Amino acid sequence: MTSPVSIALIGAGNVAWHLGRAFEQAGHQIVLVYSRTLVKAEFLAETLLQAHPTQELDFSLVPATIFIVALKDDVVAEVLQRAIFPKNSLVVHTSGSLPISVFKVQANIRGGVFYLVQTFSKAVAIDFQKTPIGVEASNPEDVLFLKNLAASISEKVIDLPTETRKIIHLAAVFACNFTNHLLGISHDLLTQQQIDFTILQPLVIETVQKAFAHAPFRVQTGPAVRFDQNILAQHQQLLQDKPDYAAIYTMLTESIQKKAQEITMLNKE
Amino acid sequence: MTSPVSIALIGAGNVAWHLGRAFEQAGHQIVLVYSRTLVKAEFLAETLLQAHPTQELDFSLVPATIFIVALKDDVVAEVLQRAIFPKNSLVVHTSGSLPISVFKVQANIRGGVFYLVQTFSKAVAIDFQKTPIGVEASNPEDVLFLKNLAASISEKVIDLPTETRKIIHLAAVFACNFTNHLLGISHDLLTQQQIDFTILQPLVIETVQKAFAHAPFRVQTGPAVRFDQNILAQHQQLLQDKPDYAAIYTMLTESIQKKAQEITMLNKE
Repeated sequence: MTSPVSIALIGAGNVAWHLGRAFEQAGHQIVLVYSRTLVKAEFLAETLLQAHPTQELDFSLVPATIFIVALKDDVVAEVLQRAIFPKNSLVVHTSGSLPISVFKVQANIRGGVFYLVQTFSKAVAIDFQKTPIGVEASNPEDVLFLKNLAASISEKVIDLPTETRKIIHLAAVFACNFTNHLLGISHDLLTQQQIDFTILQPLVIETVQKAFAHAPFRVQTGPAVRFDQNILAQHQQLLQDKPDYAAIYTMLTESIQKKAQEITMLNKE
Repeated sequence: MTSPVSIALIGAGNVAWHLGRAFEQAGHQIVLVYSRTLVKAEFLAETLLQAHPTQELDFSLVPATIFIVALKDDVVAEVLQRAIFPKNSLVVHTSGSLPISVFKVQANIRGGVFYLVQTFSKAVAIDFQKTPIGVEASNPEDVLFLKNLAASISEKVIDLPTETRKIIHLAAVFACNFTNHLLGISHDLLTQQQIDFTILQPLVIETVQKAFAHAPFRVQTGPAVRFDQNILAQHQQLLQDKPDYAAIYTMLTESIQKKAQEITMLNKE
């Protein structure tokens, strides 16, 4: 993208924080940062070149080419309802789950989606060039505009209709949210015995690399897929005073074994 | 470790393959590779400088200072029972779960453990310097010897008694084997919709990095920990013809929510 774009950030959380930086580095201009809490808008605006902080939802005089709503899913609809945008503005959200129809509450805006397939925390720098961005809009010109804007910060830009985006979000819950919970259980088991969780770090990183280099079900390792009854019994014994963890252990073990049997059947056919 | 060690590898699988390389690079000598299948022993021995391949379990004339049993857990006991070692040999296994008492079947050997906290596949090079190695032996001289040997290939060497090693292995099942299965479900959901699984790779890598930089339970994200009923219901809807995945979704969601409530209670105290 050669021409700079004027951007308003509706939200001052982790996504807005990282997006603001990335857009400025790509030569765009953040003209406004909105947050319900003014001090948060000010905090982010101060780190940007020319952004004006606000807690007002009247954006009617804001000279932005695009308004990017980077808020928690459960407040997007309410903010969209109450906000006043310049007539016929392009307004997009960054959610994995909200349908594009969420913009119907405003008659005179063009709605779209700018979905970053990444998790953000302020302390960790993100390589935006590697972050997939899925875009969606009701009219083709807006799709093209969003793709160009996305391509100015990422090399992985795709068309992503609402139904496909929802599947990606669901898959991300398994691959990331649930994975984090399993890492939490692992961390808990180790720290209860005064063992440093980082002992597993090389193993986990290698597991993830292997899963993305192959189909994960086909590179499954461990006692479940080996149907190693001795180890499985030993682990249930170790978990006997942790019934929640034991139940998860049992369910995932059975799921791994069922999948392994399906793969064996498929290979025989 | 300054003085080179003569090592016999009992096993020619992925662990033996990587260990052989790492020991040679550290200046040690692999004198023997055993496999039940001669061609496998030959295959590995050919990639090493001076290793003799064999499928015989009579090691009585093998001039090795240490015999490293790198076999699947369920065949270790049987191989130990049938093998003939030089009298008073140091014999170690590489298992996360087998107790040191597995060596009791042989009266005249010194048993030990040389546990690599890593997963191995031949195609992927491993940074051994970062791979934690836990050692255990019945007498202090052997512990020292094993620690020196481990330190010649890794900077992360620890004393690891059987009971602690078992906990690490259990934690690794949650953090790696179960994580791989969740990645498999994620892969399955995406590929069924012709979406490339690698779209999630930056997100998963970031999730893992975040989990090891913080306590994972405290950086949990996603609809479960937000108690976002709309998204949770949407996901159950998307999984309605996949009851196994839906059941895992429900169980892990409830576990995340329970843990989040525990953490909230703790913070209030």
